[in-house]
Amino acid sequence: MLPSYFILDPLLKNWLQEDIGRGDRSTSGILWNHAKGGQAHWVVKETGVIAGLPVANRVFQLLNSTVRFIPTVAEGEYCEAQTIIAEIEGPLDALLTGERVSLNLAMRLSGIATATRAYVEEIADLQVRLVDTRKTTPGLRVLEKYATFIGGAINHRFGLDDAIMIKDNHIQAAGSIEEAITRIRKTMPYPLSIEVETSNLEEVKQALNMGVEIIMLDNMTVSEMKDAVQLIRHHSGGVKIEASGNITLENIRSVALTGVDYISTSAPITRSTWLDLSMRI
Amino acid sequence: MLPSYFILDPLLKNWLQEDIGRGDRSTSGILWNHAKGGQAHWVVKETGVIAGLPVANRVFQLLNSTVRFIPTVAEGEYCEAQTIIAEIEGPLDALLTGERVSLNLAMRLSGIATATRAYVEEIADLQVRLVDTRKTTPGLRVLEKYATFIGGAINHRFGLDDAIMIKDNHIQAAGSIEEAITRIRKTMPYPLSIEVETSNLEEVKQALNMGVEIIMLDNMTVSEMKDAVQLIRHHSGGVKIEASGNITLENIRSVALTGVDYISTSAPITRSTWLDLSMRI
Amino acid sequence: MLPSYFILDPLLKNWLQEDIGRGDRSTSGILWNHAKGGQAHWVVKETGVIAGLPVANRVFQLLNSTVRFIPTVAEGEYCEAQTIIAEIEGPLDALLTGERVSLNLAMRLSGIATATRAYVEEIADLQVRLVDTRKTTPGLRVLEKYATFIGGAINHRFGLDDAIMIKDNHIQAAGSIEEAITRIRKTMPYPLSIEVETSNLEEVKQALNMGVEIIMLDNMTVSEMKDAVQLIRHHSGGVKIEASGNITLENIRSVALTGVDYISTSAPITRSTWLDLSMRI
Amino acid sequence: MLPSYFILDPLLKNWLQEDIGRGDRSTSGILWNHAKGGQAHWVVKETGVIAGLPVANRVFQLLNSTVRFIPTVAEGEYCEAQTIIAEIEGPLDALLTGERVSLNLAMRLSGIATATRAYVEEIADLQVRLVDTRKTTPGLRVLEKYATFIGGAINHRFGLDDAIMIKDNHIQAAGSIEEAITRIRKTMPYPLSIEVETSNLEEVKQALNMGVEIIMLDNMTVSEMKDAVQLIRHHSGGVKIEASGNITLENIRSVALTGVDYISTSAPITRSTWLDLSMRI
Amino acid sequence: MLPSYFILDPLLKNWLQEDIGRGDRSTSGILWNHAKGGQAHWVVKETGVIAGLPVANRVFQLLNSTVRFIPTVAEGEYCEAQTIIAEIEGPLDALLTGERVSLNLAMRLSGIATATRAYVEEIADLQVRLVDTRKTTPGLRVLEKYATFIGGAINHRFGLDDAIMIKDNHIQAAGSIEEAITRIRKTMPYPLSIEVETSNLEEVKQALNMGVEIIMLDNMTVSEMKDAVQLIRHHSGGVKIEASGNITLENIRSVALTGVDYISTSAPITRSTWLDLSMRI
Amino acid sequence: MLPSYFILDPLLKNWLQEDIGRGDRSTSGILWNHAKGGQAHWVVKETGVIAGLPVANRVFQLLNSTVRFIPTVAEGEYCEAQTIIAEIEGPLDALLTGERVSLNLAMRLSGIATATRAYVEEIADLQVRLVDTRKTTPGLRVLEKYATFIGGAINHRFGLDDAIMIKDNHIQAAGSIEEAITRIRKTMPYPLSIEVETSNLEEVKQALNMGVEIIMLDNMTVSEMKDAVQLIRHHSGGVKIEASGNITLENIRSVALTGVDYISTSAPITRSTWLDLSMRI
Repeated sequence: MLPSYFILDPLLKNWLQEDIGRGDRSTSGILWNHAKGGQAHWVVKETGVIAGLPVANRVFQLLNSTVRFIPTVAEGEYCEAQTIIAEIEGPLDALLTGERVSLNLAMRLSGIATATRAYVEEIADLQVRLVDTRKTTPGLRVLEKYATFIGGAINHRFGLDDAIMIKDNHIQAAGSIEEAITRIRKTMPYPLSIEVETSNLEEVKQALNMGVEIIMLDNMTVSEMKDAVQLIRHHSGGVKIEASGNITLENIRSVALTGVDYISTSAPITRSTWLDLSMRI
Repeated sequence: MLPSYFILDPLLKNWLQEDIGRGDRSTSGILWNHAKGGQAHWVVKETGVIAGLPVANRVFQLLNSTVRFIPTVAEGEYCEAQTIIAEIEGPLDALLTGERVSLNLAMRLSGIATATRAYVEEIADLQVRLVDTRKTTPGLRVLEKYATFIGGAINHRFGLDDAIMIKDNHIQAAGSIEEAITRIRKTMPYPLSIEVETSNLEEVKQALNMGVEIIMLDNMTVSEMKDAVQLIRHHSGGVKIEASGNITLENIRSVALTGVDYISTSAPITRSTWLDLSMRI
Repeated sequence: MLPSYFILDPLLKNWLQEDIGRGDRSTSGILWNHAKGGQAHWVVKETGVIAGLPVANRVFQLLNSTVRFIPTVAEGEYCEAQTIIAEIEGPLDALLTGERVSLNLAMRLSGIATATRAYVEEIADLQVRLVDTRKTTPGLRVLEKYATFIGGAINHRFGLDDAIMIKDNHIQAAGSIEEAITRIRKTMPYPLSIEVETSNLEEVKQALNMGVEIIMLDNMTVSEMKDAVQLIRHHSGGVKIEASGNITLENIRSVALTGVDYISTSAPITRSTWLDLSMRI
Repeated sequence: MLPSYFILDPLLKNWLQEDIGRGDRSTSGILWNHAKGGQAHWVVKETGVIAGLPVANRVFQLLNSTVRFIPTVAEGEYCEAQTIIAEIEGPLDALLTGERVSLNLAMRLSGIATATRAYVEEIADLQVRLVDTRKTTPGLRVLEKYATFIGGAINHRFGLDDAIMIKDNHIQAAGSIEEAITRIRKTMPYPLSIEVETSNLEEVKQALNMGVEIIMLDNMTVSEMKDAVQLIRHHSGGVKIEASGNITLENIRSVALTGVDYISTSAPITRSTWLDLSMRI
Repeated sequence: MLPSYFILDPLLKNWLQEDIGRGDRSTSGILWNHAKGGQAHWVVKETGVIAGLPVANRVFQLLNSTVRFIPTVAEGEYCEAQTIIAEIEGPLDALLTGERVSLNLAMRLSGIATATRAYVEEIADLQVRLVDTRKTTPGLRVLEKYATFIGGAINHRFGLDDAIMIKDNHIQAAGSIEEAITRIRKTMPYPLSIEVETSNLEEVKQALNMGVEIIMLDNMTVSEMKDAVQLIRHHSGGVKIEASGNITLENIRSVALTGVDYISTSAPITRSTWLDLSMRI
Repeated sequence: MLPSYFILDPLLKNWLQEDIGRGDRSTSGILWNHAKGGQAHWVVKETGVIAGLPVANRVFQLLNSTVRFIPTVAEGEYCEAQTIIAEIEGPLDALLTGERVSLNLAMRLSGIATATRAYVEEIADLQVRLVDTRKTTPGLRVLEKYATFIGGAINHRFGLDDAIMIKDNHIQAAGSIEEAITRIRKTMPYPLSIEVETSNLEEVKQALNMGVEIIMLDNMTVSEMKDAVQLIRHHSGGVKIEASGNITLENIRSVALTGVDYISTSAPITRSTWLDLSMRI
């Protein structure tokens, strides 16, 4: 979901600061002592899913609260190339100074939403849900995860503190799955879930025996995943099963058909490109 | 170039904070009261140009200054898939907690460097230089521009304050190229260069008449660009010429052969994907 | 668990800043141009559980990294009045300037740990665990929850983002428990647990039907709690049960005997007083 | 006095941030795309002095400036249990998200004010004034001292920089009271007062001879204090006398009757519990 | 030019914070519970150029947005002593608390503008322009350069990143002018200008040969400067020439008459005194 | 006194950031991949009192902790022009990047110390002490007041919170001196001093009657001051007397001879120029 302004504003201010530096010399040179209003619109130049319009709106608001940024398509809407997606009115200097940062954000987020949608459509008729990962651009996690949500995915954890994920490296550090879980349970906040990364049926059994909430089947073949799902469902109805590892548009449906609950992939974030948007005054 | 730690550290701390939140519950649960050292290495899982190793090193340093992160390939080196690119030694908790942020950065930067290299190689035998743009991920500009530099490009301006760029929207706000430049010259720091975006020969002439330092040929055909280059060279030897707009691996060489000095494109940043890296303990 | 220095240092620096303001006029007046080392020790002046020694150590470290703060009792140890709990050596100005902030923290945390221990001892032989709440002093949550952990409790969630808690006010805003859960499930990160506050058996049934992970029995009588526990256990083995509301040292054991898994109370934080510590040079 | 918003807002934002983290998942899940207003009121659940209503108001304002928080009792009013102390109207999400932080603050501050009032009432008919100390919760000093003021006390210094306090540890570091004062006078801002902690008549005489503004009688018996007061008054009319050390509700009146000007105690802050408040929608 | 509020506000807030500390005890003591409006005006007490009125206005706005600060002279106007330069209306506490910070800024900036004007007037009929340097008070660069602009100068670069300046120390570090420029050109953003500090004709020639954009004639005699100007103009029409070093009101005109384009001096910033302003209620 | 690094470092980092921006392009271009050490020294180019060497040292330390900055004169020493005042060794990039900020600070502080010394010398044989004011450059107060201290003055208050100063504007807001003091005494921290600005004997009497700690004689003639001093000394031995208003090198001695305790003037800060220092590699 869209982070509240309380969370968003400090990020946006930092990003405007990065671009503006000691001043927008072009714009302020032209408009110094020439207060002037203007109108602009945003066009999407290639077909895709639009995400980030409320974020773009807020960028302009932070520069000048009188700017009116009016989306003409819905957030998350699939748009043909050349669609006008927003109308903007307000002081020209705010429009010119805020253009790049707002576009950069919306282009990145729309690119992610577009890619997410492609994966989601492959499995839309099934019970399984697509989820994201922690492979996000540093500093943009809340927004990039917002974009996968707009694209139709469900979010996985947001950081190292809101869920326990026991990966191969943790198991190695602890000595065994059992030891890792035992130690963590002594110190973790009790409502958190524990997810364990497993790469074979033996590890799945260990995780089941320890009563974890989520079992990730990592880089297994479709056939191994089917066995794992059967094993887990037989053992307990409450355990959630997540498939992970090298998910592509080609193989996602076959993975989904193994009966897992969630398929996680970083591809919509790490393998997507920006959706081309531009602003015209 | 790599930003100094003075510039880098506040960014890296924010990004670690984003991931760690209120604590790395998995790692600290396992290693609480179990101080323990460990070794790890980084592997590149697809072929590409490596960038970001000094940044990754600094991420670990900020968590624990005793971590030793030793690159085994050179920054900017083109590596085959499965190459080991770094060896790491140090406290296991720092290795585990810093893994994701450092990898995310190096994957993103290596993806950019790899894409940049592809463009640069198309024109490597010519005088022209590839340059980047302000289409960068908010918050990561100094690092993403470092990655294009590692990939072989030259950086364009870093923000709205270190060079003047007069775009179509500015010209429209001022009324004309002449008026825009006249106004800006009254207020700008004198060592800054003025670049004007032009879309036809008429605008090129106006820019030349105003004595600007850089003329951008924006979205012109190859033939138009040739005419523009001839016109500018004839008028003055000192003006730098930049081609821009829809540059692809396919058309970059023909654009280069028009005789421009610089070709700018955001593609290595907006059209690249992350280079897959992983850490193994 | 003790937050890492990465999390702790910014807090400690703010708190030192609050006390020091524009300078420690007494100490720097005396020691200006008189660099001088010294020794001190800390004494607990009333009987209780000591918590916060590593935090105190870090306060001094931030003022001068050569200070040696050596605990002479274990963190979490129950100490008689007048026990020496730490020896300190280092530059006198760091000792004098850091005295108040470090003591204030350790006094507050030891007070919480002492009170927590009293509650925990009442139920130490049972399976049930004591847990804390979000009633913590603003700004000190990670430390106050560390203190309840040292005192023997398990932590509940740390904020509004690491677990879902549906309280009476949320149910009212949504219209019903069902509606609240249905809406939240559409947007929440999937590994998070949902806890529902219930005040009668009817609400318990609704929560069970929605498949929540945790059911809180809020302000129920012991007899109602027994019925609720029976109902929940019969329905599903996986649901965790938390009792809450007006827990006292007098009634905690009878609540525990109802068979709930967790008893939550803010009392060790909101009803405790500081444990008296002092520093002597 | 209540710190101005200029001072208060950064604190409140940090504290909201602590609780909200990456988002209030319960509230925003329920109210996403369901903008909705609501009403609530605050009730005090035990008898005491209310403090912190303007602070609570500001917490909600920072989340949404349209919230109206209307106190129904005066700040500092002594209220019976079950009194409604404020009515609140505004967007439900702001009410739900701000509930815990605002209540935590008002509960803590009201607890301090209530305890302060108890001490003040013991000496209300005398000239002597109750004052607080630097034993305050790190990060909350301006607010906790505001609460003692609301409870009827006068504030002592706010930090290490707005008054000179020469304690036993300083005297030891300097060698003598004379040496400590001589050194400090050379460097301190001239309008600051010097207070010296004394534990016997000999030290009182030394402090008097050095012309200090305030003499603290630390941990003296009532009889010793009487002698000290007589000695000081005889010597100079301008010196302020402060009694300190193990002040309780039982002994405060006898201390007051020794003729001191001020009695300082941390008890209302370190020995008080939170006043129970709750919000109902 | 005046930095935008986006840039200015964080500076002004820090500066107000520096003065206010934990509270304006005088003002809030007097006006606590006495909300009261008032009027004031600003008077310049010595003759000079006024600069900083929009900055002063913003200082008051940040304390209370209802304050109306109405300049009665133009920014940059030369005023006789005793001229009223602004009328102010609004809450008395904002007027009293903001008085010192706003006056300090306007006094400093007006002092700079006044001194700048004196230099500019010496050369006003010539083509040459006065420029400032990086000798500015730490933290105030954008404002002090704004003041030289208001006084009639043009700004030089704002920092180490918006233009290349190769000074004697850089040349020594690189080995030669050629080597320094060659190295820098490999890494610098391409639109940046290179300026080289030269102290004799030989160095001027080297700089010319390397094709730099700006040549500084540093501490040369008038006669040397004439030779250098002739040499440079003969070589290329596009190179800008800057004279620097020990510029005074006495010698500036003779330097200007050498034909240089710019004369840089820090004197209006390092050799000016504050223009005396005061506020009367 | 020199603020501790705890206070100083955040200021210095901001000021380095202001100058460095996105990178020191000249230095890092030259020294990239050319790690190189160097030596430099600082020379004072005009006669004056040196202040700020420890501050300059810290600037370099923050860039690279291996830099050795070794003063060759004492802080506060009066030096002839051309004296070498410090030797510096360390990485060349740190020396080059830190040069301007460190010099700017030391030049400003030395200018203030030099001017302060001139005033102090006029009255060095008398009991009276020179004090500074709150007319300081925003952001530099702790350092500028350090410079007046090094120059021989005593500091006045540092902000609006560490002493009460009742000025004409406050008196007007309150209605009278009596009312102002009465109100403030109800809310102020008790150890703070109250100073009242008086402009005639009538106001002096009112202030005396209210028992204030300090009386300022503002803009009185020497004869009026003599009368005021006599009146105050007769009334009470404990009241401190401060003369203020248009103090110059010419009149300071006659003001001092009136018998006041302190003479306050902003002139060493608002009327001084920077002492010329330079760095040579």
